[in-house]
Amino acid sequence: MVNKVGNIFIVGIGPGDRQMMTDEAFSAMEDADVIVGYTVYIDLVKNVFADKRFFTTPMRQEVERCRACFDFALQGENVAFICSGDAGVYGMAAPMYELLPEYVSKGFPADNILVIPGVTAAISGAAVLGAPINHDFCVISLSDLLTPWEVIEKRLKAAIDGDFAIALYNPSSKKRSDYLKRACQIMLDAGADENRACGYVENIGRDGTKSTVCTLSQLKDTEVNMFTTVFIGNSKSEIIEGKLVTKRGYLI
Amino acid sequence: MVNKVGNIFIVGIGPGDRQMMTDEAFSAMEDADVIVGYTVYIDLVKNVFADKRFFTTPMRQEVERCRACFDFALQGENVAFICSGDAGVYGMAAPMYELLPEYVSKGFPADNILVIPGVTAAISGAAVLGAPINHDFCVISLSDLLTPWEVIEKRLKAAIDGDFAIALYNPSSKKRSDYLKRACQIMLDAGADENRACGYVENIGRDGTKSTVCTLSQLKDTEVNMFTTVFIGNSKSEIIEGKLVTKRGYLI
Repeated sequence: MVNKVGNIFIVGIGPGDRQMMTDEAFSAMEDADVIVGYTVYIDLVKNVFADKRFFTTPMRQEVERCRACFDFALQGENVAFICSGDAGVYGMAAPMYELLPEYVSKGFPADNILVIPGVTAAISGAAVLGAPINHDFCVISLSDLLTPWEVIEKRLKAAIDGDFAIALYNPSSKKRSDYLKRACQIMLDAGADENRACGYVENIGRDGTKSTVCTLSQLKDTEVNMFTTVFIGNSKSEIIEGKLVTKRGYLI
Repeated sequence: MVNKVGNIFIVGIGPGDRQMMTDEAFSAMEDADVIVGYTVYIDLVKNVFADKRFFTTPMRQEVERCRACFDFALQGENVAFICSGDAGVYGMAAPMYELLPEYVSKGFPADNILVIPGVTAAISGAAVLGAPINHDFCVISLSDLLTPWEVIEKRLKAAIDGDFAIALYNPSSKKRSDYLKRACQIMLDAGADENRACGYVENIGRDGTKSTVCTLSQLKDTEVNMFTTVFIGNSKSEIIEGKLVTKRGYLI
């Protein structure tokens, strides 16, 4: 007897709070036989789905996590593969599609994968700060674990050249405590004014959410933790009533 | 007797489908005395909240729509001001904060405004296409209604210089039917390969969702409608099993 192959939903769960999750994301977890994810994200949903089976792998074992999803599905199980924020923004959608051809050759139907979008930190963090990305914007990760620093540097320069508002992901970690400082210096050298309006948000959608607005030169001397998303306004952004606002142009 | 001032929730409702809305967004509409928005968006939620009061203004009357929210709140009413996608991505969060100081001087408490994030088209469209923005990316609107075309052109060039994946909003309208063609030519002139992996999605999260993958030179000769979001991969993006995938780097 041949097992029916299961479905894999790659689910963006948002910042973690049920209130900031879409119904589609919630249903995918509810309908799954097994919920797969990084330990920290599994902990965010474990209480809500107490009766589910969970499969976690630690950091740096992302590819093993992807393979586990295909293996479960090939055994006939429906899988919810969860990512914080959105599954397609620095999430696991891309590696899953990169592995897909290999599993298609093993009998996995390509259409059995579906990405379920979620609220990524650029969006949820922006809502806390006001309206920092209300015009054209870039999202850049400062993590050089998988991306050469020269590429990150090139993108920071291009973002200033194009006068984009910017959301910075992974602005810090134990090994990269000075990366935000370096990034700010690159943006200043690229011509951004030291008084450029900026801000950052810690623990978005979780206990202890905290937001701060500041100038680019103040940001350069700020130490943020790894649970922080940083926003750089464009050249016309302003701090209004304590909020970071990048104008769309409806009001002159 | 002085009225208690109401709250204004600026709500990103996602593409429109209830399944792709957050609970927080749904609750804000449920709890509101009046739901304000552009006619097209109000139509998306009118059936769900049949017993609510609605206030709409047509296109080009965005500022009047913002002012109506403050006026309702000053009369003691709780307002849900809805935007499609996310309220802070080309949405009404910025103009609301721009008007805020004027209404604070009329007695509106600055803290009575809250932005509720939603799934913007870059995220929901990406989920349909696969994983087009799974690494650093830019979001650019091709509408020159409020932004000079030279600024849009500068940003398109910068996005290619920085080798970002790109999501293009407002790629077309009756008056701007050749704007996508022009944008593609700018990107080609900036050094993007004519075989760059691209794609586009029509009617995201609504009836008739349709996605297509293609090369940049094919995209240049494609006519899309105003309900389309367009994606340009970065230099390393690939079409895999019919999906547009921008690699994160987990697999070499």
